[in-house]
Amino acid sequence: MYRRVGKPSSGWANPATALFASRIGLSYKARTRDLTFAFSKDVLNMYDHYAAIGAVDAAEKETVETLFEECGKLCTQQLFPLYQSGDVEGCKRHPVDGTVTTPKGFKEAYRSVVEGGWAGICGPREFGGLEMPQSIGVATKEMIGTANWAFLGYPGLTAGAVSTIDAWGSEVLKQAYFPKLTTGEWTGTMCMTEPHCGTDLGQCRTKAEPFLPAAAAAVSDASAADQHHHPISPYRLHGTKIFITGGDHDLAENIVHVVLAKLPDAPPGTKGLSLFLVPKFLTKFDGTLDTTRKNVNCARAESKMGMAASATCQLEFENSIGYLIGEPHSGMKAMFTFMNEARIGAAIQGVCHAELAFQNALAYARERKSLRGLSGTKEPEAVADAIIHHPNVRHNILFCKAIAEGGRLMCLDLARMVDLINTAKSDEERHKFTEEAGFYTPIAKALLTELGLEAASCGVQVFGGHGYIKGNGMEQILRDARIGTLYEGTTGVQALDFIGRKVLKSKTREPAKFAARVAAVAKPFVMKSGDIGKCSRQLMRLSLQWRFGVGALYLNAAKDKESVGSASQDVLMFAGYITLGYYWLRMAIAAQKQIDAGKDVDGFYLAKVTTCKFYFDRILPRATAHYDMMMLPATSLMKTDQTKWDM
Amino acid sequence: MYRRVGKPSSGWANPATALFASRIGLSYKARTRDLTFAFSKDVLNMYDHYAAIGAVDAAEKETVETLFEECGKLCTQQLFPLYQSGDVEGCKRHPVDGTVTTPKGFKEAYRSVVEGGWAGICGPREFGGLEMPQSIGVATKEMIGTANWAFLGYPGLTAGAVSTIDAWGSEVLKQAYFPKLTTGEWTGTMCMTEPHCGTDLGQCRTKAEPFLPAAAAAVSDASAADQHHHPISPYRLHGTKIFITGGDHDLAENIVHVVLAKLPDAPPGTKGLSLFLVPKFLTKFDGTLDTTRKNVNCARAESKMGMAASATCQLEFENSIGYLIGEPHSGMKAMFTFMNEARIGAAIQGVCHAELAFQNALAYARERKSLRGLSGTKEPEAVADAIIHHPNVRHNILFCKAIAEGGRLMCLDLARMVDLINTAKSDEERHKFTEEAGFYTPIAKALLTELGLEAASCGVQVFGGHGYIKGNGMEQILRDARIGTLYEGTTGVQALDFIGRKVLKSKTREPAKFAARVAAVAKPFVMKSGDIGKCSRQLMRLSLQWRFGVGALYLNAAKDKESVGSASQDVLMFAGYITLGYYWLRMAIAAQKQIDAGKDVDGFYLAKVTTCKFYFDRILPRATAHYDMMMLPATSLMKTDQTKWDM
Repeated sequence: MYRRVGKPSSGWANPATALFASRIGLSYKARTRDLTFAFSKDVLNMYDHYAAIGAVDAAEKETVETLFEECGKLCTQQLFPLYQSGDVEGCKRHPVDGTVTTPKGFKEAYRSVVEGGWAGICGPREFGGLEMPQSIGVATKEMIGTANWAFLGYPGLTAGAVSTIDAWGSEVLKQAYFPKLTTGEWTGTMCMTEPHCGTDLGQCRTKAEPFLPAAAAAVSDASAADQHHHPISPYRLHGTKIFITGGDHDLAENIVHVVLAKLPDAPPGTKGLSLFLVPKFLTKFDGTLDTTRKNVNCARAESKMGMAASATCQLEFENSIGYLIGEPHSGMKAMFTFMNEARIGAAIQGVCHAELAFQNALAYARERKSLRGLSGTKEPEAVADAIIHHPNVRHNILFCKAIAEGGRLMCLDLARMVDLINTAKSDEERHKFTEEAGFYTPIAKALLTELGLEAASCGVQVFGGHGYIKGNGMEQILRDARIGTLYEGTTGVQALDFIGRKVLKSKTREPAKFAARVAAVAKPFVMKSGDIGKCSRQLMRLSLQWRFGVGALYLNAAKDKESVGSASQDVLMFAGYITLGYYWLRMAIAAQKQIDAGKDVDGFYLAKVTTCKFYFDRILPRATAHYDMMMLPATSLMKTDQTKWDM
Repeated sequence: MYRRVGKPSSGWANPATALFASRIGLSYKARTRDLTFAFSKDVLNMYDHYAAIGAVDAAEKETVETLFEECGKLCTQQLFPLYQSGDVEGCKRHPVDGTVTTPKGFKEAYRSVVEGGWAGICGPREFGGLEMPQSIGVATKEMIGTANWAFLGYPGLTAGAVSTIDAWGSEVLKQAYFPKLTTGEWTGTMCMTEPHCGTDLGQCRTKAEPFLPAAAAAVSDASAADQHHHPISPYRLHGTKIFITGGDHDLAENIVHVVLAKLPDAPPGTKGLSLFLVPKFLTKFDGTLDTTRKNVNCARAESKMGMAASATCQLEFENSIGYLIGEPHSGMKAMFTFMNEARIGAAIQGVCHAELAFQNALAYARERKSLRGLSGTKEPEAVADAIIHHPNVRHNILFCKAIAEGGRLMCLDLARMVDLINTAKSDEERHKFTEEAGFYTPIAKALLTELGLEAASCGVQVFGGHGYIKGNGMEQILRDARIGTLYEGTTGVQALDFIGRKVLKSKTREPAKFAARVAAVAKPFVMKSGDIGKCSRQLMRLSLQWRFGVGALYLNAAKDKESVGSASQDVLMFAGYITLGYYWLRMAIAAQKQIDAGKDVDGFYLAKVTTCKFYFDRILPRATAHYDMMMLPATSLMKTDQTKWDM
């Protein structure tokens, strides 16, 4: 079960191998069975959804399941084996020429991803993509990310760049960049943060000036451009962007940066931001790349707590030629296409790290022997019982399982909403689905990165001291997971987005729909006996509390803005725990139906029901504490003089 | 305020320095003012306590405060500057001779610690110690540990070894080892864990055989020993111990290992463990060290998630000569002296990391500008408001402050109980204080390491993406903090100790005393208006809930052991949050008294009261969730078939 780095052996309790206890590698398997369940009629009913939105290929269960199997093979055979070695080796920036080298094996793995069509799985078919729905893309992303989260950044952000350029870029730009970007032969990045500002993008100092016609002749298609707001008009960019994932690397011959910058006539603040496409290498007249001169320079590759195999770059734009994406001063609107996709991506990270922690903590707990079960000996033939028999260890492992499987469903359902946006038949419909997905995006991003991080820490805990040792892998999962609550908007920023734009601004419309959605699942079961009845009553109670709480917040919001801010993270987490409860209940109801029909031949469905009960028993009670805290005035946060705090 | 690694500059918002935003070093200052408050008459009333136990030197306020000032200087000037560099360089084991080298500067710093008398601050005066009470030792440990937690391990475990040998070792052993061990010229370790067992020490395989008289002649004092259970009888030890902090290093000429091993006639399990003193180098007849041959070999130095400057060694005992400490087969009892001290030490770690995270998150939040305050602009002259004005950021910082300052008081009070054990006038008294300290030890260890870890993560969060970057230091605090919940017994092990030995075994006596103690502080204020009245009512309610909950557990324990195990961590955390609330209330009451007397000239006391309110408002509500969970049956943890979890 374990991929041992040390001498191979038969088990932990074996004296001969005991010394290798601290040199155990991680293991990974693709959870395709769980995906099949999530996609099934009684859960997300994905195939009918695909048929309804006209995604013909995706509507074939067999096609999709084969695709998952293939993706699982890629992950197991090529991506996961690089997870630990990639951490040890990391990315390296050449001190002179500034190019970044990825760890050994990444190039070959990336080539497989491109050749297998995985990079372009949701990209436009016209340019070599498979044009699968986002929900299929999310399922494969989760597998790839569990196997190797650092690796996923390269194709992941490329897909985000494609979506953004697809939504806002001109046809000329697409013709020039999509043939290679969609397939992943070139990769993409998102360039927002600057050294002095991340969240507050209005402070951006990166500038873009229109490029002079004479010089523009060096750039392909420039002759077709008028020199002002035409989509392909070249600009010169000046500025510094930091924390750029995949900002430089050796996996592709070109990198397409999607960059926020200000035009000379820009109004102040975020309203003055425009979006640009800035390639690492420019294209010559003959269509080939001019690799003699870099258009964008990598000035630094960050050394980070984790994610060592993911190149996090500081990029210098110095007279860098770029092309406007969308309208001038509409950069934020366009960038939100990218950001929303990246936020869903970050939510998936929570699932990935919970899943990897789950699989490995479980495998370890089944082998490691310590003490005897409290209610009596479980393994009389062994020197001690496996730690899987201890309640505290089970708690830590079930925590990971609850977050991984519940979070998986949450992400898939959110992606299903994105499918509906992408295939909406009217602006009205598109608006409706956008509002809905917008409500769940900060929930999924914040809740799942926070709980994914906690799950990673639970995984370390199951290993005891061995969890703290490098090479055993558990501490790497935790280090990698720690970025989740920071990037693509911190948890606090998600909370402000949620309470401001998604709760209060919608005048309780989306929050009410949320409560109704939860009630629709729970209500039919509240009079039932057994676990599902209990869970349903618990969830109904919380959905009523949610309605009441949001009403109170709304009444208070106008007169006391600080209280809204002070409550925001608790509001978000309260909604988050309810949401995860909702998805667990949906799974349990579907699973119970199979059990009642006598179809639980191997115990898979019963495990779903018992894990649902675990979630409701031992995680969901936190919701009440968040509710209590979200109803508090701001006083204890805001009416305290911070200048005296550190005396 | 910041020790900048890059170019020095005036501030974050300055464009010229913006690029160095990702290369900011940590800062540290000794919180001696907070210690003064904790020791004061209205809080712990330490000086009267010292007078009562006859600790004459410690009873002088001025002496103690001067000592704290001096310790603060040592920490600021010598230990803290090595915190980040120590992480970068780490400890290195020589591949051939196995010796471990500590990072640059550690040797000099350690010499200062020894020469300043800090290593022997609580050690016996007869052998060069200052014989200060443990509570003074804890205060200095906390300062040293905040400045450099990895460093503290070397003198910290030495002090634990001294306490253990002092309590259980023979006079001959003390005469031979204490002159250099007490002062820290030699260091000590605690050797328990083996590759296949940590918690379950009954599985220990390290063996000790009586040494033949002829060969024993090579060992000093061996002639004075009869060859069986006499305290100085030499034994030969065989076995492997792992995760030994300070197991090898270059800070001292000798290392004294305190080792659990089994004698040939040992009964099975932990009852068969005996304790041995095993020096790295043996002493020759002339009293000098025989450095030509190592008595214990370091086979490996672990590469860990954090704590890189702390040598974590695998030690090989091969015919290693050692001496029995205490009676044969009484090793566990003796080792508990060491373990209890180490557990309090680990509790201090929570305080240290919360404190360091607090200081640095606060400093950053005061400088970093982002967006505007929700209730209006706070810094109109600046490009944006400092993030300290945002509620979510304040929450993260106040979290750190609440854990650091509340935890500080908890550790000091626990050490005060240890003072009482150490100076008890009768066995009965000693038993009483031992029971009391025994109740609070797992609470402090588990709660403060868990919350210290969370605080470290909050600190990272305040820095946003910059928190994830190496060199900025926040991620180091988090990596270092992660070990806390793992060593000296995981949180789960503390929980079993607490519920088993401290709650149920004491037949609700200690739990009732705990509730009474809490009530004694809160009750006089429950009818008062204002924050202190509110907090007192909240705490009274919880103390009643505690009584009820423990009663229910006790009734249930006999018939359902799994439920007890399943509840254990929630019981511990429930008690823990109440305990921390109790200490915060004590501080707030004392501070309010000063405010009411018009003595809060600089706002220090008001900050105490408002932080207390923060704790009660925004951390303590978690207690209720733990209460709800501790009342659950074991079903959702134990009645679920783990073999089906990962299908």
